[in-house]
Parts: sequence; structure tokens; C-alpha cells
Amino acid sequence: MAASRAYLDHNASAPLRSAARDAMLAALEVDANPSSVHAQGRAARRLVEAARRDVAALVGGDPANVVFTSGATEAASWLLTDEWQMGRTPLTMSRLLVCAADHPATLNGGRFPRDRIGVVGVDGDGLVDLDALSRELAERGADEGPALVALHLANNETGVVQPVGRIAEIVGAAGGVLVLDAVQAAGRLSLDMSAGLADFLVLSSHKLGGPKGAGAVVSAGSILMPAPMIRGGGQEHGHRAGTENVAAIAGFGAAARAGRESLPDMARVGALRDRIEATILDLVPDATIFGRKAPRLPNTTFFAIPGIKAETAQIAFDLEGVALSAGSACSSGKVGPSHVLKAMGHGAYGGALRVSIGHATTEADLAAFAAALGKLVARRSARAA
Amino acid sequence: MAASRAYLDHNASAPLRSAARDAMLAALEVDANPSSVHAQGRAARRLVEAARRDVAALVGGDPANVVFTSGATEAASWLLTDEWQMGRTPLTMSRLLVCAADHPATLNGGRFPRDRIGVVGVDGDGLVDLDALSRELAERGADEGPALVALHLANNETGVVQPVGRIAEIVGAAGGVLVLDAVQAAGRLSLDMSAGLADFLVLSSHKLGGPKGAGAVVSAGSILMPAPMIRGGGQEHGHRAGTENVAAIAGFGAAARAGRESLPDMARVGALRDRIEATILDLVPDATIFGRKAPRLPNTTFFAIPGIKAETAQIAFDLEGVALSAGSACSSGKVGPSHVLKAMGHGAYGGALRVSIGHATTEADLAAFAAALGKLVARRSARAA
Repeated sequence: MAASRAYLDHNASAPLRSAARDAMLAALEVDANPSSVHAQGRAARRLVEAARRDVAALVGGDPANVVFTSGATEAASWLLTDEWQMGRTPLTMSRLLVCAADHPATLNGGRFPRDRIGVVGVDGDGLVDLDALSRELAERGADEGPALVALHLANNETGVVQPVGRIAEIVGAAGGVLVLDAVQAAGRLSLDMSAGLADFLVLSSHKLGGPKGAGAVVSAGSILMPAPMIRGGGQEHGHRAGTENVAAIAGFGAAARAGRESLPDMARVGALRDRIEATILDLVPDATIFGRKAPRLPNTTFFAIPGIKAETAQIAFDLEGVALSAGSACSSGKVGPSHVLKAMGHGAYGGALRVSIGHATTEADLAAFAAALGKLVARRSARAA
Repeated sequence: MAASRAYLDHNASAPLRSAARDAMLAALEVDANPSSVHAQGRAARRLVEAARRDVAALVGGDPANVVFTSGATEAASWLLTDEWQMGRTPLTMSRLLVCAADHPATLNGGRFPRDRIGVVGVDGDGLVDLDALSRELAERGADEGPALVALHLANNETGVVQPVGRIAEIVGAAGGVLVLDAVQAAGRLSLDMSAGLADFLVLSSHKLGGPKGAGAVVSAGSILMPAPMIRGGGQEHGHRAGTENVAAIAGFGAAARAGRESLPDMARVGALRDRIEATILDLVPDATIFGRKAPRLPNTTFFAIPGIKAETAQIAFDLEGVALSAGSACSSGKVGPSHVLKAMGHGAYGGALRVSIGHATTEADLAAFAAALGKLVARRSARAA
């Protein structure tokens, strides 16, 4: 798109980092299947394995425990099943617990049997109800398999960051398995699998400045794994078949590396976000910013303007050349009340607007946002007058 | 790779067509999620939908019946399940029949329950045993659900093309559902879903000159569909969730269009393949070319040289700058006897070499192949002397 538009929708898809584009272009020159044993095949394989190291490094993981997928939704659907294996021995998970404010890829429970899925709520700030989590975990019978707990590390709509240290303790004490959807957190927060962050992390390339079409599961170990979902030629150590998307994986690796190196830049991003929120509260003193009392990602703000429906506002911003979202972009053109707001007890709001920024955000973007918001508010005032 | 190498492994992964590369580069400029409703999101959506039309046109399908996946293996794993739906009504498939010479993504039966999978053999030319298929289909009880039949349209190792008209008649008469793995056939043969080719086709972008990371299921209708495997945001009409891989899909669309427009070029490719076979029989009069009496793709030859193991020969070719394969490249560096040869009753051969060519193949490639084969044969003669 023309540079004159302001793209403030990084949580839906972040702009491609130049390092990722360069890595993709180089990878597209390799005409081969990475499983082929000839020179071209080996060249493709090297690109995949280099990316595996970069993705592991982003989250303090072991490259041997990175399984590439086509994206985070595939990764979640693979993990969210009751059919697991401990080495070669089948293991059935007893229950799946998800969080009411999860992304649909987690909240819908993937392939887990519907009648054994529990949902844990969040409070008004968007933080998981830890007592409810403990209670739900205690309901497991002693003779049942482990419980699987899957929830977001950082919320895609509000940016609220969950107390994952406490969550890992609670899940671990109950003998459960913790899957963290780190899609929005990776590249924005420092994450360290080697410090016991979770049993499994789900990552998405395009949310951190890589291309669409790649994601990963990073596991703490290699013994306890879900049964394969995509079966065929045995790629990814048998966990995920199909010819690897070499170019997207190479771009993912480059973005992961760039993201890790530019984590300090998140302070600048956080300052920009804070200025955006100051602008919002300056122009719309009665605005509500959701999750503001909780720890949040530095790049996200989610707010409601009384008297203006979020969908209407979003279109108005778009016409002014500012791309932001009303909730998340989780399915084709779907617009409706945010399930995250509802889970937080804020369902009475007429939706909310999400501004999500990042490495590509400029002063010009902030000015465009402020100008568009000013026009919107002026119309609201004129209507009210 | 350097142009000085000869890449004769199109069936493992075809070189990227320039039109596909251009389409990808353009798509990478669009910073958005195709589900976003703002201008950038709509631009991404348009790229996906244009590609859907091009992919449908390649196989005479309806764009509304194209579901994009991350590749053919995902597509096969999605289709090969007993959990289907007729509209919103669940339907259980009674059995899965596959073919002994299928690609592992089909042969392994995807997610179908193991105890209800049957395997139909092939004859010495690689053609499906139609009598056995009929017999297997007749075994279904009257009160059971339909049988699912999944097999390759053209074989990835031999290039043998199955009598799909007869197969569709047999499966249709038995009330079964026919899935054709058209991965190797698409772009090499004229295919027409509108003429009743199959109930479902599986396609792969990177086998026809598009990028890796995209594939599709093209269905004859939209009522009878497998239950979703990848669940989340509801993309692809709810059949396959996850943010679309816009760049790969755009590249797939461009490759499909180029493939359709250049189908007449397959006559040239076929003539090159025939010259390669003439070279083989000239330099190695005792060579065996498999499947030669059956209809074959114009781009593939699969042959054995008595006294030389295929893996050894493949390495020798590689050292001479010629990339070809010993069997298929279906998993990481896996080298072993071809299950296709075994299924054809030729398991006694020490494997076979596959040369697969296409749009990018040149006279220089043929010369490089002939030179490398000549050296190999000279060494064999020296050893025998």
C-alpha cells in the first residue's frame, strides 16, 4: 500500500521486516525440496535449520524442540487434542482448559473432544482467574490423564499479559501440561523457555514481522508430544509432514532474529503507544482504555469511544487512511462484538478499537491517527450539539 | 543455485516460475491480514480471491469450491478422515481405500482409523488393479456410510497416469467418494473437474512452479465436506482456519495460470523426456524404464541401471552437477527402497533413478545428464572388465 496510509494493525499482521523479505528472496532462488539429498536439496535444508536456530533463540528454546507449522492456528489445532504420546506410548489427556479471552484458535479447543473442555474466565482487567484455574485443575480424578491448559500469554485485542509464572506453577503443581499462545508476545517481550516458561509455546511468523505461512511449536522437551495431525512423508521428526515452506520459514527465522535484536526498541514502541493513549484521552476524555491497570504489551491499546460504534469508527479511520481494527481480524470480514470484552464484563460497550503498532511505526502514523480521531470526535460533538 | 547445475527433480519441487515470483513480491508489499476490513486487508483479500479463480481454472473447477491449504500433505490429511459432514449433518465414512503406489501422504491414510483402511495394488506397469478396487468396494455393508477412495492421478515416481475415468465410474457406481491426488498431474495434463473427474482433487503449488507453502482442495460440490481439521477463526468458509498465506497463494495462482497457458509446452517437455530415455537406452542398453507401457506424464522417467545402486548413482550424478532423485523426496534425507517399485513387483531392483523435468528444462540440462550418465556407465564397465 502507499506509504501515505498509516498501518496501525500490527496485531492482525505486522509489516514484513526487510530482513525477512531479503531472506525470502534468497530462499526462493533455491529450486529444491529440502528433503532431497542433492546439493540443491541440502541448500534448502540449511535454510530451514538456520531458521530453526533463530526461532529457538527468540524464546530461549532448543532448536531440536522447534516444529515448524504453517502458522499458529495449525500449531494450536495440532496441540489441542486429547491424543498425545509419551515417546511411542499413547497418552490420553483428561481435559482441556482454555481461557475465555483466548484467540478462537485456542478458545474453540482445536480437535479436543467438546465435552471435556473447560473455560476459565478473566477479571475486568483481562487477567485469568487463577482461583478458577486451580479449582478446575483439582477436579481431575487421580486415575485420569494429565489436564492440558492452553491460554494466551498476551491478549491479541487488549495486549494484557497474563501472570504466566504463577500459571505455570499452578499447572505444574497439578501435573498438567501448559500450552502458551505466545503469538502476540514473541518479539515484543523477552521470553525464555529455558527458565520454565511453559511446556509448549505457539508462535506465528507474520505477527512478528515475518511472512504469513509459517508458525512454530516450541516445546520444553521432546518426549511428551501430541500425536501427529498432518501425516505423510515424516518431515519435522515425524511431528508434521509436508514439504517445508522454505521461503516462509527462512523469512520467519530472519524476523525472529531481527525481533530478538530489536527487543530494546520496544521501549520506543511503548512510548509511542503511551502517546497514542494520551492523544485518545486528550481528544476523548470519556474514552475507556481496556486492561490498562494490568501489565500489557508495549504496542497495543484497546479503547471505546462512548456514542460511536467501533465498526463505524473503524470505517471512518479507514477512509482517513488509518488502518486499525475493531477487535481482531480472525475471520473473513467478520465484524461483531468482541468476545474478549464480553469475557472482561464489558459487553455493554459498543465494541472497541484496537491500535497495534511496532517496528514500522513512525511519527507520521501517530499524526495521522490523531488527525483522524480529531475529525471523528468533531463529528460526534456536532451530532450531540 | 548456479545455473551450471542441471536440476532434473521437478517432481520433488519444480523451479519457481517467474510469474509466481513476481506475484509473491507484489503480495509481500501488502501489509495486512486478508480478514481485516480496512483498505490494506481488502487488498490482501483480492489477491487471495484472484488466485482462487486461477487455481480453479487450471482444473476446470468452481472458485467457490477451492479451499486453500498449506500444501498437499495438509490437504490429504484433512480429506482422509472418517468424520465428514453433509451440510451440517455429520456423516461417517465406512472405509478408506488407498493405492499401494500412492504418495505417503495418501498411503498412510491421514487421520482415518487404521483398522478401516484397505490397500489396492497395482500391476507391473503401475496401473491400479480395477478388479480389486471393485471387490473392495463391494465389501461395504448396505447400512454403512460411503467408502472413501483416495489415489494418485499420476504417480510421483514413475509418472504413470491412472485410468481415472474408469476409476470414477467404479467408485461412483458403489456410492463412494473419490479423492484424486493430482499433485503431479496438475499443470502437466489437462484436467477438468466440470467433466466429473473426481469428487475432490488435491493440488500442490510447488510441484507446478509455484512456491512451497500452498496447496488446495478442489471439490466438485460444497455440501459433502470433511470436518475441519485446522480450527480457529473460520477462514476458507470455515473449512480451514488460519490467516491465509497471501504471498504463497498469490504465487500459486500465478503458477496455475502460467501452467494452464503453457500446457501446450508439455509436448516439448515430452519430446525432451523421450530424448532422455533414448540417451539412457543408448548408454545403458540393459536399463529398465518402469511404467513405460502405461500412459505416463510427459515429464518423468524412472529407470534402473543393473549393477549400480540407485543411491550410489544419485550421488554420482550430484557430484557431476546433476540433481535427480532415487525415488521420491518425501522425508528428510530418507533413502530406501521405493515402495512404488515394490508395489509394481519390481522390488528386486536395487532402486531406481527418477528424472523429472518441466518448464525450466533446457538442452544444456540434457547434455549434462548425458555426460554424467556416460561417466557412470564407463565406471561400471571398468569395474566389470
